[in-house]
Amino acid sequence: MPASPIRKLTPFADKAKQEGKKVYHLNIGQPDIETPEGMLNAVKNIDFDIWAYTPSEGTLSYRKKLTEYYNKLGYNIDAGNIIVTTGGSEAITIAMMTCLDPGDEVIIPEPFYANYNGFASQSDVVVKPILAFIENDFALPPIAEFEKLITDKTRAIIICSPNNPTGYLYTREELEALKTLCLKYDLFLFCDEAYREFCYDGREFISPMHLEGLDEHVIVMDTVSKRYSACGARLGCLITKNKNVWNTALKFAQARLSPGMVEQIAGEAAVDTPDEYFTKVNKEYTSRRNTLVKALNNIEGVYCPNPGGAFYVVAKLPIDNADKFCQWLLEEFSYNNQTVMLAPATGFYSSANTGLNEVRFAYVLNNDDLKTAIVCLEEALKAYPGRTIHSEQLAAGK
Amino acid sequence: MPASPIRKLTPFADKAKQEGKKVYHLNIGQPDIETPEGMLNAVKNIDFDIWAYTPSEGTLSYRKKLTEYYNKLGYNIDAGNIIVTTGGSEAITIAMMTCLDPGDEVIIPEPFYANYNGFASQSDVVVKPILAFIENDFALPPIAEFEKLITDKTRAIIICSPNNPTGYLYTREELEALKTLCLKYDLFLFCDEAYREFCYDGREFISPMHLEGLDEHVIVMDTVSKRYSACGARLGCLITKNKNVWNTALKFAQARLSPGMVEQIAGEAAVDTPDEYFTKVNKEYTSRRNTLVKALNNIEGVYCPNPGGAFYVVAKLPIDNADKFCQWLLEEFSYNNQTVMLAPATGFYSSANTGLNEVRFAYVLNNDDLKTAIVCLEEALKAYPGRTIHSEQLAAGK
Repeated sequence: MPASPIRKLTPFADKAKQEGKKVYHLNIGQPDIETPEGMLNAVKNIDFDIWAYTPSEGTLSYRKKLTEYYNKLGYNIDAGNIIVTTGGSEAITIAMMTCLDPGDEVIIPEPFYANYNGFASQSDVVVKPILAFIENDFALPPIAEFEKLITDKTRAIIICSPNNPTGYLYTREELEALKTLCLKYDLFLFCDEAYREFCYDGREFISPMHLEGLDEHVIVMDTVSKRYSACGARLGCLITKNKNVWNTALKFAQARLSPGMVEQIAGEAAVDTPDEYFTKVNKEYTSRRNTLVKALNNIEGVYCPNPGGAFYVVAKLPIDNADKFCQWLLEEFSYNNQTVMLAPATGFYSSANTGLNEVRFAYVLNNDDLKTAIVCLEEALKAYPGRTIHSEQLAAGK
Repeated sequence: MPASPIRKLTPFADKAKQEGKKVYHLNIGQPDIETPEGMLNAVKNIDFDIWAYTPSEGTLSYRKKLTEYYNKLGYNIDAGNIIVTTGGSEAITIAMMTCLDPGDEVIIPEPFYANYNGFASQSDVVVKPILAFIENDFALPPIAEFEKLITDKTRAIIICSPNNPTGYLYTREELEALKTLCLKYDLFLFCDEAYREFCYDGREFISPMHLEGLDEHVIVMDTVSKRYSACGARLGCLITKNKNVWNTALKFAQARLSPGMVEQIAGEAAVDTPDEYFTKVNKEYTSRRNTLVKALNNIEGVYCPNPGGAFYVVAKLPIDNADKFCQWLLEEFSYNNQTVMLAPATGFYSSANTGLNEVRFAYVLNNDDLKTAIVCLEEALKAYPGRTIHSEQLAAGK
């Protein structure tokens, strides 16, 4: 299994820190937003003597409470459609192991969340990537391209919306197109909705759960990590109306006995987080995204789409190789004794030689830090020896 | 993947409860002992604003504290030998995926913890069982029997000591014999030490970590579940001095990002649990084991070894089929409107037609309840239509 693209730069970041450089971390998805007070209070107020196993599918109490949350979104589910998991990671692994046999294929638009590769490798599942293009703001690739990849081994499609790493928010039309495809070829549609709460500019979040006639095909993979800024809680869930899938997924859940008990208590309290929490968080992220996207597009030779959700963007830089550039930023470069840590987009592509001039930014810093970090990046791009597009070329019309 | 042997009786137990019967649960490994106060207080006293990811291998702080615990046992490790996992379950899965390729074989003395089958199935690993006999109190099978099973696909041996389901505590001599075998055939020795704290009658716990010259081969799979009666914490770890194994295991840990943060805080506090806690718990379990083993051996036609550890025993009953008997206990039988729920030992055997007349008892009830439950069992054995040995046979010398 390959090293995580996010983590392989860690040794260089450690070295940069040892040298006394301030490193702006725009590389990881750990939000700096506070966890809702009600959720933390639920932990502080635990009231039991034995920290016991819960049912493998999660406590009935938590699953019932979750239905309140999901049914407000119009998912129309009951507790029997949910399996509580140890983080979104486990929801994805269980979904893969449940729906795909070893050697079966799953199609995923790329760039995609790099850990899908790890989960697929653990589940002996073959990932078939399908290119989404930055020029098209990473919209869903044409359905005809999906059809070209379908074989008798294809069992599922994974989408992540809003997307990690691109921030792209799939439209109803795109999901309807996927629905037609899944029905035509009898495929599962896995939807990773970790960033559901983070949709901007009034854009509507649409889930495959909202589509009629797709109940047997849809598996939602969810987590509280980003919703409540509670990544370390390791609490997620898998949702499906397909009873066979649920029953098989339960066996995998039983093999590992139980999800965390304290987390489920906290997760139950989290459902009552007041709307103002999300309003405030969304306002903050919208402002950061605006700051970041504007600043990036103001840099010569840089292009960054303005995505509808999540807290990531992928931007194209005038560089030869994102891996080299990101390592160079940490090892060789400093501006006012500062530098920037970014995630090379290459790690989010499964096809060879793609995303070479793209990087992912996680806007998990406040506006002031973001602005300073981007100034730093701009200076770095001027100084980087592997710069590909020069001012004179740009002046001559790229 | 097959349904868990422990859980497949659940619907019958539910039915028994609906009928108003009191069911004594001797089937599951959920202790009724209280979690140490210090561990629960650590949860109540959490002091952070963001419930964040921790490093994938666990926090340095927790791993350092764990070395205090393990080095008191003489393991001679440092924080760099530990990967913190989501329960013992994940430690086992990661160990299998790290050390065995798909199709590789692992030898496990049976009866064994049934979930090893699930973990092996998820890891595409082939389990080769080797029979341990109740007549021999489930001691380690002869090394010659292991050698008969070794092929060019064999990579590891798993032992669990003290054992679930038998309670058997492996001796230093047995471990030395396994060491010689592992060195001869270059095999990993996985040791599931979930029940390490529960050794009785002054018997010494010996780990493969105590053996000289086996550092590259040993992987300990551990959990706080039983040690601190904290099964719902989902906190375990994998320990190895083999750097390649540690590095590869880390990649699997990175794929799922992080173990739980609150659990690691609690786990750190748990290391300071006063010795009196364990003295008290061990005294209680010893007393229960004595009660149970004595009462069982007093029943006509029953044989139960007197194991050195854990909180399980496997006993041989005068019955035709343990699955049928355990289901019959719940569905058909009652004595003073009470019945007993047991785990058929068949689920702990991987070979066909083994353990048919054996059941596992978990002594997770207090002495009074245990006594009542065994009276109930004795009456049941008299009434059970599938009884195989009758009083007259016993009188005639079995």
